Amino acid sequence: MTSRISTHICNGVQHVFSGDGKVGDMAAGMGLTETMMQRAEMMQEAAETTFSRLTFEEKLDRLAEVAVKVGLGLRGGQEMLMSAPIDALPLVRRITEHAYKAGARLVTTFYGDDPSIVARYQFAKDESFDYAPVWLQDAIATAFRSGAARLAIAGANPALLAGQDPAKVSRANVAMSKASKPAMELITRHEINWTIVACATPEWAKLVFPGLPVDDAVEKLWEAIFKASRIDGDDPVAQWKEHGARLKQRVDVLNAKRFHSLRFRSADGTTDLTVGLADEHLWAGGGTTAGNGVYCQPNIPTEECFTTPHKDRVDGVVRATKPLSHQGTLIENIAVRFEGGKIVEAHATAGEDVLNRLISTDDGARRLGEVALVPHSSPIAQSGILFWNTLFDENAASHIALGQAYSTCLKGGEKMPEEELAALGANSSLIHVDWMIGSGAMDVDGVRADGTSEPLMRAGEWV
Amino acid sequence: MTSRISTHICNGVQHVFSGDGKVGDMAAGMGLTETMMQRAEMMQEAAETTFSRLTFEEKLDRLAEVAVKVGLGLRGGQEMLMSAPIDALPLVRRITEHAYKAGARLVTTFYGDDPSIVARYQFAKDESFDYAPVWLQDAIATAFRSGAARLAIAGANPALLAGQDPAKVSRANVAMSKASKPAMELITRHEINWTIVACATPEWAKLVFPGLPVDDAVEKLWEAIFKASRIDGDDPVAQWKEHGARLKQRVDVLNAKRFHSLRFRSADGTTDLTVGLADEHLWAGGGTTAGNGVYCQPNIPTEECFTTPHKDRVDGVVRATKPLSHQGTLIENIAVRFEGGKIVEAHATAGEDVLNRLISTDDGARRLGEVALVPHSSPIAQSGILFWNTLFDENAASHIALGQAYSTCLKGGEKMPEEELAALGANSSLIHVDWMIGSGAMDVDGVRADGTSEPLMRAGEWV
Repeated sequence: MTSRISTHICNGVQHVFSGDGKVGDMAAGMGLTETMMQRAEMMQEAAETTFSRLTFEEKLDRLAEVAVKVGLGLRGGQEMLMSAPIDALPLVRRITEHAYKAGARLVTTFYGDDPSIVARYQFAKDESFDYAPVWLQDAIATAFRSGAARLAIAGANPALLAGQDPAKVSRANVAMSKASKPAMELITRHEINWTIVACATPEWAKLVFPGLPVDDAVEKLWEAIFKASRIDGDDPVAQWKEHGARLKQRVDVLNAKRFHSLRFRSADGTTDLTVGLADEHLWAGGGTTAGNGVYCQPNIPTEECFTTPHKDRVDGVVRATKPLSHQGTLIENIAVRFEGGKIVEAHATAGEDVLNRLISTDDGARRLGEVALVPHSSPIAQSGILFWNTLFDENAASHIALGQAYSTCLKGGEKMPEEELAALGANSSLIHVDWMIGSGAMDVDGVRADGTSEPLMRAGEWV
Repeated sequence: MTSRISTHICNGVQHVFSGDGKVGDMAAGMGLTETMMQRAEMMQEAAETTFSRLTFEEKLDRLAEVAVKVGLGLRGGQEMLMSAPIDALPLVRRITEHAYKAGARLVTTFYGDDPSIVARYQFAKDESFDYAPVWLQDAIATAFRSGAARLAIAGANPALLAGQDPAKVSRANVAMSKASKPAMELITRHEINWTIVACATPEWAKLVFPGLPVDDAVEKLWEAIFKASRIDGDDPVAQWKEHGARLKQRVDVLNAKRFHSLRFRSADGTTDLTVGLADEHLWAGGGTTAGNGVYCQPNIPTEECFTTPHKDRVDGVVRATKPLSHQGTLIENIAVRFEGGKIVEAHATAGEDVLNRLISTDDGARRLGEVALVPHSSPIAQSGILFWNTLFDENAASHIALGQAYSTCLKGGEKMPEEELAALGANSSLIHVDWMIGSGAMDVDGVRADGTSEPLMRAGEWV
């Protein structure tokens, strides 16, 4: 699952925020029946008519409300830190209002400005690229430890740094990953409530809808975001509860199976990958109760069930089914071979240099920290839109992530020291980068410890 | 002198930056002759023609260059922190480019958004207003201590909070002053190089030119800023050196006099104020060599010579000659009476409540921390524009400031502990608020320890 998404160094402020979803208390007891779900779908259809009548400002306000109430579950008196591209200002203002209405003590927003980021690559001296503002990242970690919640708005240009020197991009990313480690750990361990939502911006929209005039592209991307973020129903907050409960049902089934590994096979034979699961792994999806006791939805949208693979037990070949935007650079047609958990061969038709630098970040960068199942019938997949943004694309396809594992996807993992996590097979790294491997032509089997197996997905759908 | 100007709590980030100018090494040896100055003026006239031919973008770029090279004197490899209203984005981008060209290691910008600030006053719970983000202000102080320079862009709406509850505004200001004390001390002690420049923004321009359509008002305010900031010459960087040297000549004359006090008298008798000067006081103006060795111009524009008054030796009545915008609120027609250094009576025709809360911040808030002389022939005064922004208005008139004194305006003051500073008469407070008392109808006398005196200014001009 999840995504540190649209990520990036923004005038020194990194938007670095993975998503995830630990099994959630609130959703746990809901157990919806088929009839209830059908009724919900009918209501949804009626509601769509209503939604289409709303003004853009009203739609934006709904997204803001869902971000604060569902995404963060902001608690009265809690401080809130927000990061956003400067183009997201209208959404920032709506979210700020909803946060104060929900009792936020203070909202502090860090804005990223794409041209200011590019100016660094154009004009800064070489030494600049090994530096990151530790003073600021430490302060953010301090705020988290003092009870602050974290809301990230994704929407920066996915191809911002595509034309820049990959060595400098990589050095800046490594420096930022090191500087932001304390803050990131609080996030990957789900010690605080946090969420990511998206905002359509011109550069992003142009990449998603290259044929359209920019205003039309932005409008179309907004509609896609509203739909994927499930705010187009009658009562989005209630409907998010139902959606979370449905994901939770699937998670419960997977947790009961105790598989030893998963096997992914594509119809064309380019993917045949066995992903061993960590001992004591837990599947998650649909929401998380954070360490501070607040129930949150770390990714809006979310359509996935995910868990922690075993860092030493991944073997075979796998080909990406969607391109990847990583820190403002694009990597296309990734194809890698794993042996004993480690990537031993990596190719891409575009951005191969970026990919190779990425997996050379540290030892854990060549190993998996997450595996996630998403059916091809996911509404995001069905939209047919390639978003060039992991927050969306990872919820349109099964995926794997290189790098850091989520300790919350191991029994008792939240409180476990690193050595114990590693002994169970959980990977550790400065990076966590999801990439999409699922499609309508992917079969997935669950393999038991005794070598027997059962089909989980056929042609991209749950069996 | 100086101004923490346009200041304010911006989404939790306070733009808090006083200006000042310790006697500068660089300017010290220049000693321009009358003839040189006349030639400079002729060149200036020729240059104005050239300047008027520049595009707006080119003018903006000049201001950015002067901000980085003259204002900050940014040193290669130095980190830079910037604060700016979000409307200042085009200027921020230009400054960022010039900073990287000058060798900045990293530029980190904190943006303030006026509507997000107002949202807090509209929707936040009462408890919010005693809180400020100590974690962020501490981090900024840490960055300063590690060598970062500080550039603040003034331009927020001077009347932003005029309609809000003065009690809440005051509580939020006090909380922010306390939180930002460590960072402010590094600034008031001039341990780092820092500067403030201005950016025309729509809300500000509407207040300055209320009769004009907003676009015209913004254009007119920009032209006034460019002129006041002395970037309309042929070679603004060189001309700033000359301007600094001229101020320094005046400072040297004042320092040689060793006055015991200054006496301000207005033609209409509403002001008759004796301002005792601190023992070992130093006059300053035209630039500062900061504790980190970097020569900077803390205020752009600057037209003043200023020093530290004696906190216990101010007596008489004084009436403000311009209104004051303080933290987004307006205070008009201030009239106060001092006894033994302390305000014992304070009135204003608008914002009296804000004024009374301000001088009740702490004991030092009723006493003076600065006195500054500015001739009525200052180009900013001659423009006839009331800017509603201290960065400009204090350079159009002699002024005094309530609150914190600048330790650099005392011999050896930079290294002095607080008790020693206090023993010499330097005031201490969480606030430092300049307000304008000079005009074309003000006489100023320098009074010696033996009671004899000499005229310093007559009808607002140097004698």
